[in-house]
Amino acid sequence: MRNVDEMTITDAVLKRLSGASDERTAEISAALIRHLHAFVREIRPTIEEWEKGIEFLTNTGRMCSSTRQEFVLLSDTLGVSMLVDAINHGVAQGVTESTVLGPFYVEGPPERAQGENISGGLEGEPLIVTGSVRGPDSAPIGGAVVDVWHSDGDGYYDVQQLEHVGGLAMRARFLADGNGAFHFWTIKPAAYPIPHDGPVGAMLEKQGRHPWRPAHIHFMISAPGYQKLVTHVFAEGDKYLDSDVVFGVKDSLIREFVEMPPGPTPDGLVRNSSFFHLHYDFGLHAA
Amino acid sequence: MRNVDEMTITDAVLKRLSGASDERTAEISAALIRHLHAFVREIRPTIEEWEKGIEFLTNTGRMCSSTRQEFVLLSDTLGVSMLVDAINHGVAQGVTESTVLGPFYVEGPPERAQGENISGGLEGEPLIVTGSVRGPDSAPIGGAVVDVWHSDGDGYYDVQQLEHVGGLAMRARFLADGNGAFHFWTIKPAAYPIPHDGPVGAMLEKQGRHPWRPAHIHFMISAPGYQKLVTHVFAEGDKYLDSDVVFGVKDSLIREFVEMPPGPTPDGLVRNSSFFHLHYDFGLHAA
Ligand SMILES: [Cu+2]
Ligand SMILES: [Fe+3]
Ligand SMILES: [Fe+3]
Repeated sequence: MRNVDEMTITDAVLKRLSGASDERTAEISAALIRHLHAFVREIRPTIEEWEKGIEFLTNTGRMCSSTRQEFVLLSDTLGVSMLVDAINHGVAQGVTESTVLGPFYVEGPPERAQGENISGGLEGEPLIVTGSVRGPDSAPIGGAVVDVWHSDGDGYYDVQQLEHVGGLAMRARFLADGNGAFHFWTIKPAAYPIPHDGPVGAMLEKQGRHPWRPAHIHFMISAPGYQKLVTHVFAEGDKYLDSDVVFGVKDSLIREFVEMPPGPTPDGLVRNSSFFHLHYDFGLHAA
Repeated sequence: MRNVDEMTITDAVLKRLSGASDERTAEISAALIRHLHAFVREIRPTIEEWEKGIEFLTNTGRMCSSTRQEFVLLSDTLGVSMLVDAINHGVAQGVTESTVLGPFYVEGPPERAQGENISGGLEGEPLIVTGSVRGPDSAPIGGAVVDVWHSDGDGYYDVQQLEHVGGLAMRARFLADGNGAFHFWTIKPAAYPIPHDGPVGAMLEKQGRHPWRPAHIHFMISAPGYQKLVTHVFAEGDKYLDSDVVFGVKDSLIREFVEMPPGPTPDGLVRNSSFFHLHYDFGLHAA
């Protein structure tokens, strides 16, 4: 194929896929080429704008490291992550809704025992989280693996301040007990801006958008025979619930972080100062 | 906006652009969001496929360096670069057609005098290139800046083998003389595969495509009052003219690299062994 022009190039590129190694590769490649070309034909970029696009992608790649995933931030802020989530997770009776994974999950978090404090010694407002894991039939799922992670009271995750924290903190793996229940102590998370000192932050600024997410705790819950659940619980009353920069908020995932007076705690202890309590009952979808 | 689903998320993201800093940012962002979401809705990726997409982009970024531009290769191989070129450069009487810049241009190439040999001492088949630069009215453009760059006889550019070559070679900047003419000696370039040891190479393999480009010499020509011309001259008879991996070939850009017997050369010398001669007359568009 020679002499391609604005009208013939898309077909010329699509024809090259005739020898693709598998059907799915051909399908994804063809859709990518068609939509990418349609995008370019619509915006009619100048050469300088195309160069800026290349530069943006290159800088986004340069920003990625073992503790920073700028392409995930890009996917999140363009609504692609929530779209992929919606495509893969329908709404079903008795099943907790899912939301974005986000860029701060760490594979294989530290395993902790029920009731432990996972704040890693960081200061903050004490919070006890209690919850349960059930199937869509409400039957408890004993032994379910519950991964949790969240920010500190200033909105920073451990991996954003490793030197200060001295290691992983505010993240852990728990095993639900025989009644599907779990509980742990930590500190109350805060609303936070996603990391915005990179290309995605510059994009948000040009788009006139703030980079904030409402306060939340991440949960990833799995058990044999059930679909893995990736979700958050959001803090009721947060000012960013309606403008989450990654579009992740669902009403069913909002709960009050209840302020409790000094006295007995949900795990049978007694505290002589006030604390917060968050409770959520999770429902998993059968696999 | 809360509770987005597969159908409502695109509008939710588009609404966030209402405060964009300028009209063009809003326009490009909106088109990107719409086409990206349409692509995702069409292919309905699994979570694992989305993760592979993020990984592909991250690895593409990781491959970029001062001598390697993997995102340009991606744009080239998906036909985006030629599409952008077609959008920006119409066909006009007396004006040379343009084609892709490619990833091997180096800003500010070494300035050389007419007739110099730019092979940098590399071995190969001797080639004299002669040409002229004219306006669409055929008037010569004296002093036009002519940047050239090309591969060696094995298909490698200087920047791909800097340790071996010891510096820039097979690239130079010439100034056209008062008649708009220029000429220089070098070695004959060969067909070459684009760098395919990275993510783009892996993509081409999965798509069942070869990574080859037909032999060519790159030209970038500019002069005050004229539009900059970015193009190649391709070698007639090359086996990849109909399957250039980046879709860059145009019939009007193909010329014979003519084999000449020992004897007089076009620049008035005498050689006692055979050599090749390439001639091209370039036409620039008025600015
Ligand atoms: Cu589209
Ligand atoms: Fe988070
Ligand atoms: Fe080239």
